[in-house]
Amino acid sequence: MEDLYPTRRNEEVIIDRREPVVYGAPDSHNSNALSADQLATYESDGFIIIPNVFSAHEVDFMVREYETLAFNHDLQGREELVFEPESNELRSIFNPQRFSPLFDRISRDQRIKDKAQQILDSDVYIHQARINIKRGIHGKSFPWHSDFETWHAEDGLPRMRVLTAWIMLTENTPFNGPLFLVPGSHKQFVGCVGETPKEHHKASLRQQKYGVPSLNALNSLMDSDKLAGAFGKPGTLVFHEGNVMHGSPDNITPWPRTNLFFVYNSIHNTPASKPFAAPDFRPEFLASQNFTPLREVD
Amino acid sequence: MEDLYPTRRNEEVIIDRREPVVYGAPDSHNSNALSADQLATYESDGFIIIPNVFSAHEVDFMVREYETLAFNHDLQGREELVFEPESNELRSIFNPQRFSPLFDRISRDQRIKDKAQQILDSDVYIHQARINIKRGIHGKSFPWHSDFETWHAEDGLPRMRVLTAWIMLTENTPFNGPLFLVPGSHKQFVGCVGETPKEHHKASLRQQKYGVPSLNALNSLMDSDKLAGAFGKPGTLVFHEGNVMHGSPDNITPWPRTNLFFVYNSIHNTPASKPFAAPDFRPEFLASQNFTPLREVD
Repeated sequence: MEDLYPTRRNEEVIIDRREPVVYGAPDSHNSNALSADQLATYESDGFIIIPNVFSAHEVDFMVREYETLAFNHDLQGREELVFEPESNELRSIFNPQRFSPLFDRISRDQRIKDKAQQILDSDVYIHQARINIKRGIHGKSFPWHSDFETWHAEDGLPRMRVLTAWIMLTENTPFNGPLFLVPGSHKQFVGCVGETPKEHHKASLRQQKYGVPSLNALNSLMDSDKLAGAFGKPGTLVFHEGNVMHGSPDNITPWPRTNLFFVYNSIHNTPASKPFAAPDFRPEFLASQNFTPLREVD
Repeated sequence: MEDLYPTRRNEEVIIDRREPVVYGAPDSHNSNALSADQLATYESDGFIIIPNVFSAHEVDFMVREYETLAFNHDLQGREELVFEPESNELRSIFNPQRFSPLFDRISRDQRIKDKAQQILDSDVYIHQARINIKRGIHGKSFPWHSDFETWHAEDGLPRMRVLTAWIMLTENTPFNGPLFLVPGSHKQFVGCVGETPKEHHKASLRQQKYGVPSLNALNSLMDSDKLAGAFGKPGTLVFHEGNVMHGSPDNITPWPRTNLFFVYNSIHNTPASKPFAAPDFRPEFLASQNFTPLREVD
């Protein structure tokens, strides 16, 4: 299969995106679909922030559910459950939808799924999901990157027909280590420098070293007047395009910043027979091998 | 001399401020003075942000001047000049007004000095000054602290009749590691835990360990709805009260965030005969022993 987006080579290259951002169209018959204006925002910026999609009550349920999941018998000792090494506090739960009926239901909720299907104009499955808790005071920054770069290089996703939908479970403010995005950056692809080492995911989940654009690339993609922050109250829903450049600073407030992420991939974009720029596929909990299309909640 | 603000002991204590925030009054005859509204904001929040005080042209001159100062013969090898250890880039210049006629003039500029004198209702001198360059990508966060806690503990300033005035030399945005402040926090004093070690300033300029409030103290001082950021274009002037709690996250943008700080102390608040909670005074470049009142530019 042709590699449209070469990366992890000897030199950094910036090339144009070679496919659409929005595959679908407005649908006035579906109240869960994005409007023409919302689709246009997503197309030009590479993300859209939609407040008040989930109620405070629903968010409360999700918070209690993930706190309970940390003690779930099936999860103990598994890679899906990540605690802070020094404090033993919960940091991440991968694929909570596999261990919790509530998160399974949320992952198929029409308020999310219909929009993902609309943008990608196809059935979708979950490539990866996670809850991330960025602790107060100690929560660390994450450098600028394109998720797609990793999904392409290490997971073998051929095209950018993939996105992340996420729900704020705490307020995301300018102060608590929120996600910053570079509007429009999804229209270029930064092929990064350096051959991916074996088992790179073990290091990259903590600090990414491969697949990180250089200062030069960032300077050419970014304009200081045009950065954006994903700020919002709990229950806000964000869609960000797989290739949009994003990063986040550390969280110096005393309170955690917690978000629930679902990566929806088009069923027409399942992995190639091997990764495009890594010795092996990442493990299944980071890159699903189950391509069954998501259906409505029963 | 009575210690009104005990700190660096065995237990953390939070006590009320024991003196005014604003000592002076509005002065309609002086166009450089703060208005009654501005004084009220400073009194209640502990800071005030004033855009467009210095022109783009003036800021350009200041930027060129500090870049030149890095090569100033008198400064080479001195503690006032701080470079990044790994990259040799300029990080800080202390007391630039002592080495540069331009910064000397700025430090006495009526647009700053008159306001400082008005707030403190007295003549003032410069306790410390510095230019801080928080680098792009690598610029590190600084935890929450009150400057006065250190000035009291380590420099012997008896009272809170002291403030910092600072000028933005680059834009300060939500994205580039700006100063966050806790409005109203200047009305309480957090006496911190731990005896100050000898030569603490050598470590504390990089990472402060003593004089840092606990998570409990932060939780009691802060309200997540009420944090503030000092954002503004180059040339913006900020006054922040000596005891207001502030901190800053890291700078993940590719561009530096640069500010010029002057600490104005009332001549009625010169250091006691010894520090209140440290074995020795900090060196003179951090805590001036020259209490000559600032006068206008000649």
